[in-house]
Amino acid sequence: MQTRARGGAGTNQEAVRRHNLGTLLGQVHLRGRVSRADLTTHMGLNRSTIAGLVTELESLGLAEQVRSAAVRNGAGRPSPDVVPTPDGAHVLAVDVRVDGLAVARVGLGGTVLARATGPIPASRDPHAVADAIHAMLRLVVRDAAPSSALVGVGMAVPGVVRRSDGMVRLAPNLGWVDVPFSAILSERLGRIAPVEVGNDADLGALSEHLRGAGVDVADLVYLSGEVGVGAGVIVGGHRLVGAGGYAGEIGHLSLDPQGRECHCGNRGCWETQVGAHAIAEAIGCPADRVASLDEVLDALTSADEDLREVGRLLGRGLANVVNLLNPQVIVLGGFLRSLYPLVGEEVDRTLHDAALVAPQELVRVALPGLGPDAVLLGAAETAFGRLLADPVSCLGQAQLDVESALVVA
Amino acid sequence: MQTRARGGAGTNQEAVRRHNLGTLLGQVHLRGRVSRADLTTHMGLNRSTIAGLVTELESLGLAEQVRSAAVRNGAGRPSPDVVPTPDGAHVLAVDVRVDGLAVARVGLGGTVLARATGPIPASRDPHAVADAIHAMLRLVVRDAAPSSALVGVGMAVPGVVRRSDGMVRLAPNLGWVDVPFSAILSERLGRIAPVEVGNDADLGALSEHLRGAGVDVADLVYLSGEVGVGAGVIVGGHRLVGAGGYAGEIGHLSLDPQGRECHCGNRGCWETQVGAHAIAEAIGCPADRVASLDEVLDALTSADEDLREVGRLLGRGLANVVNLLNPQVIVLGGFLRSLYPLVGEEVDRTLHDAALVAPQELVRVALPGLGPDAVLLGAAETAFGRLLADPVSCLGQAQLDVESALVVA
Ligand SMILES: [Zn+2]
Ligand SMILES: [Zn+2]
Repeated sequence: MQTRARGGAGTNQEAVRRHNLGTLLGQVHLRGRVSRADLTTHMGLNRSTIAGLVTELESLGLAEQVRSAAVRNGAGRPSPDVVPTPDGAHVLAVDVRVDGLAVARVGLGGTVLARATGPIPASRDPHAVADAIHAMLRLVVRDAAPSSALVGVGMAVPGVVRRSDGMVRLAPNLGWVDVPFSAILSERLGRIAPVEVGNDADLGALSEHLRGAGVDVADLVYLSGEVGVGAGVIVGGHRLVGAGGYAGEIGHLSLDPQGRECHCGNRGCWETQVGAHAIAEAIGCPADRVASLDEVLDALTSADEDLREVGRLLGRGLANVVNLLNPQVIVLGGFLRSLYPLVGEEVDRTLHDAALVAPQELVRVALPGLGPDAVLLGAAETAFGRLLADPVSCLGQAQLDVESALVVA
Repeated sequence: MQTRARGGAGTNQEAVRRHNLGTLLGQVHLRGRVSRADLTTHMGLNRSTIAGLVTELESLGLAEQVRSAAVRNGAGRPSPDVVPTPDGAHVLAVDVRVDGLAVARVGLGGTVLARATGPIPASRDPHAVADAIHAMLRLVVRDAAPSSALVGVGMAVPGVVRRSDGMVRLAPNLGWVDVPFSAILSERLGRIAPVEVGNDADLGALSEHLRGAGVDVADLVYLSGEVGVGAGVIVGGHRLVGAGGYAGEIGHLSLDPQGRECHCGNRGCWETQVGAHAIAEAIGCPADRVASLDEVLDALTSADEDLREVGRLLGRGLANVVNLLNPQVIVLGGFLRSLYPLVGEEVDRTLHDAALVAPQELVRVALPGLGPDAVLLGAAETAFGRLLADPVSCLGQAQLDVESALVVA
């Protein structure tokens, strides 16, 4: 809008240049280190235009040019590589889990610069949760250079989120119904930056698609196995959104009419079979240790029959996913990441037996390429969106000296 | 390719003009009757360009201009309306069902010009089926004007289809595995036109999206309730394809581990609960009348408890669809179209109780706007694709005097 106000042909050129600058920054952000020659090829612009844009990114403090790692194969010098400056701009990422909070400060290029984890207030009251997030974020901004710009806050919630305004429509395991959490957290943080809220599984799918086990995969399902089980689904390279943004509530596939009751009111939902509490019950993990179920599972060396049955139920649900969505990769996130190494054989065999042959031939079950950080990095990624759309304008509005700002807030 | 060969700037202009001609024809084909003024607005071209394109369509015999039905509201004459010439170009559509065959000749504008239905050879042998289709198509081309161009053959199959080459990977209810049916039928018809093969539910979704209950709906699920139950899914306005084109095998959602065995090797698949045989069993319809189950259902005036239970199982499966895909409209096709009026209350109540509130609030269950023709018209629609991409080149290669050509084939 600002550029429009100037009018005339210059406006369009300026808009195009800003757009190109953002696209180039996006490439550097995603690929970490990329040669100017590659950028020229990828973006279809001429070399001098690319050189000019890189110089502008340097002057904004967002990227640096370094000597190419490529071996010289001809007469000329190889073109320099461009790398992101991690502390040139950063975001804050928050993963609200049913059983705990994780936050991180993530720099340009997707580097985790600092992280913290902690308990979630027992009440799950949204304002108390916002207070806890505020306190934890203060920990991770301590070592931020005062000159490093905060360009956004990204947050993952295990529930149904309306993205347009960050309204949490339903997060049953938190007891939240129509909680305007984006507004609550933004207020609590003194409006230091826009807050983007997304569903945890959607964000896991996003980061695994961009940087993890699903790079170059157009059809991917990311399963977030927490107290609840959700799916982030990418079809044909795009997020499966649904009419209201609620697609992917896979934990409430009702797979057994004789199964146990689910808090959703239904019976035999998949998350009653393979959610954290079902896994904990199978291994005799006490309720107060469910929050660290991954550690408990990681310490096991073998699975007994009860846990193997959970593996079979996981495979059976995956077969439904395969029959319905025909994905190329299914990424097992959350606690499923620790479960799979113990019962992989049961999962794979049940999936193989229960799914139709044609789609089953094409699917691969994978662990998150980003490990336990998939959801957190997906939240970070959404928070970088504004910067990558228009670096100049975003930096002009960004908060500096974040530590001081959060103390005051 | 032909236009490319001419080289130079004229080539691009010619390509653009042909593209515009196809786009305009697509509008007329889809909307049936549209004013030149609307076409001008919609396509963003000037009035004289539109007038020229319409004149070209007239000279190709594909459209006519008629006096506007609009009331004059100003000084000038209202712009004329453009209507498709149904017999200017036509396609042949084939719906291969487990229990019968339906074929139609469909004219430009989506008009069914002639139709025929008949039994499917008991063997389901692909060559025997192709013979039967050939014989039935001869019936529907009898009244085609020798000057009417056949521009394609579209076919629906209840199974998993690789669209690129029309290979039927798996149609379990037909007993087909890796049957190159597009090639077989094309051969049998003497190669009179390209044969496009698609999954029946996908084609139902396509036509309902274009002309039926899902016009202007970006997220839609079409259920084909036949002997098997399949889904055609449109998300964000695009077909849900999956990694290999196999997405939507919703009949094999396995919803009850204690349920009856399915031919797919699994237990409790949804189609064992709500497929044609389950419905027939609930109403005591003998096996040899399953092919006309719709008529049997249409003759009923009320549902007894067994049928109401089928309704509840339908609602329960729909809840899974809603939780996973968050569609705006679910269209009940095939036999479900006749089932729903009898057990709508059970379907709606179970769906309401079992689905999550947020996505459930947004969904509407609908009957096909195109009635029993949804799948057949979807098959026709894919067969028109080549004409709408480039009318001139397509007509230049199209078969005339189809009746004679099929006699010889
Ligand atoms: Zn549930
Ligand atoms: Zn089955």
